[in-house]
Amino acid sequence: MAPSAHLKSYGQRALKQTNPAAILLLETMERKKTNLAVSVDVTTSADFLTIVDAVGPFVCLIKTHIDILEDFEYSLIERLENLSLKHDFLIFEDRKFADIGNTVAHQYSSGVYKIARWSHLTNAHPVPGPSIIKGLASVGLPVGRGLLLLAEMSTKGSLATGTYTEDAVRMARLNRDFVVGFIAQHRMDGIGAAPDEDVTDEDFLVLTPGVGLDSKGDAMGQQYRTPEEVILDSGCDVIIVGRGVYGTDLKATAAIVARAERYMAEGWAAYLRRLV
Amino acid sequence: MAPSAHLKSYGQRALKQTNPAAILLLETMERKKTNLAVSVDVTTSADFLTIVDAVGPFVCLIKTHIDILEDFEYSLIERLENLSLKHDFLIFEDRKFADIGNTVAHQYSSGVYKIARWSHLTNAHPVPGPSIIKGLASVGLPVGRGLLLLAEMSTKGSLATGTYTEDAVRMARLNRDFVVGFIAQHRMDGIGAAPDEDVTDEDFLVLTPGVGLDSKGDAMGQQYRTPEEVILDSGCDVIIVGRGVYGTDLKATAAIVARAERYMAEGWAAYLRRLV
Repeated sequence: MAPSAHLKSYGQRALKQTNPAAILLLETMERKKTNLAVSVDVTTSADFLTIVDAVGPFVCLIKTHIDILEDFEYSLIERLENLSLKHDFLIFEDRKFADIGNTVAHQYSSGVYKIARWSHLTNAHPVPGPSIIKGLASVGLPVGRGLLLLAEMSTKGSLATGTYTEDAVRMARLNRDFVVGFIAQHRMDGIGAAPDEDVTDEDFLVLTPGVGLDSKGDAMGQQYRTPEEVILDSGCDVIIVGRGVYGTDLKATAAIVARAERYMAEGWAAYLRRLV
Repeated sequence: MAPSAHLKSYGQRALKQTNPAAILLLETMERKKTNLAVSVDVTTSADFLTIVDAVGPFVCLIKTHIDILEDFEYSLIERLENLSLKHDFLIFEDRKFADIGNTVAHQYSSGVYKIARWSHLTNAHPVPGPSIIKGLASVGLPVGRGLLLLAEMSTKGSLATGTYTEDAVRMARLNRDFVVGFIAQHRMDGIGAAPDEDVTDEDFLVLTPGVGLDSKGDAMGQQYRTPEEVILDSGCDVIIVGRGVYGTDLKATAAIVARAERYMAEGWAAYLRRLV
């Protein structure tokens, strides 16, 4: 039987997870009735905090690229955490770790950003092999963090396909305490499993970037799909939207709020339609 | 005929390169008679600068993980650049960029670290597809920087093998103005080329991590090969050594200098034996 855990509600699925960050995320989605994550890819702390505060009520998760902020100071993290409590969302630093175990352990725990201290979820490329998970888990597992593997990418000409994707899922399956799911374009449950392996109840979270309602791509190779395609057709769990929500006028808060509400509604409607 | 440009001297090869960073590196190697790069993976600025100053005379390149320094301030960069001039070496921030084009352009140019301002070389995983090169080149090419692609990794269970490696080399070949070579374990010239493609004169630089004289690996999946295996047997150009040079006692400068001299001598001897 093909895995179908994702046809249950987010709340029911939270009961079967073991990783604290995965449980928190699913519970938050159920409670707030949203599967929207906003990726806040701006370069000043002021714009960053304004947008997070504006979209906070509508999201389960804020995705950051903390290393593109020109004027980063560690006090920003405290303000981000306050907004996370105020609006009830989790934080996901989209670091895309991609080095050997010893190096990623340092990059995750220390340096200027100290990502493991404040980011409930982070992600990594499986390309270095299992040592990257071991290195990150040595830091994140003791403090209840979760990891997403990049099993696929939404860019043109991505090399994360075929056996690469299968190997990524196998790596995740062997590290289920820490790897809670994938950055991917469709469900990964059962992929790469041996014929005699029972994966019926497998339930990896799938967070999906490259979601847009009005645009088909950008000049740098990004490609877009709609919330319905992602949630209903492909069975993903979280839609990640960036510029589609915060737009080009970063001061136009009312418009940003309106777009966040729209994506939240579209994502949730697609989810309700897939429930059995 | 198989590509064999690497059997010529570093100085002769500099004449055939077009990228300014590649030319600088090869000229530096020829002038200083060293193919040693030291990877300075320590977590305080004081240790970092002490080690760079100690090994500077023996290296063509210093490899950094700038984001693991606990007490990073931008003034460190100026001190690193002063050491680079004092000792005549290039700088390679081992950032392992691995995101979509628009994001890596921000990560490379701005944020706290402003890598493109000071790092002659950086590197990227090819997994997102060609957009990552386009994004980085938009920042690095106008200021004379060069990019290395991670075509292989030295860790156990790496997914950078087979068609992945071939795709990486094809991607590099199409972006020869900016991609100067690879992080890899052997030469990549000609790999993935079409049967009718003339790659006789192809000359990608190959920089090779995982080099050690006394140790076979660490607990986090890193594996080691000797300078002779890397330079003579596999035809690589630069040996990258970390803890094998700076050791565990970061204050023992004389011992660090002695180890740097030893790796420099071993690497150069292997190079001299492969010249035709």
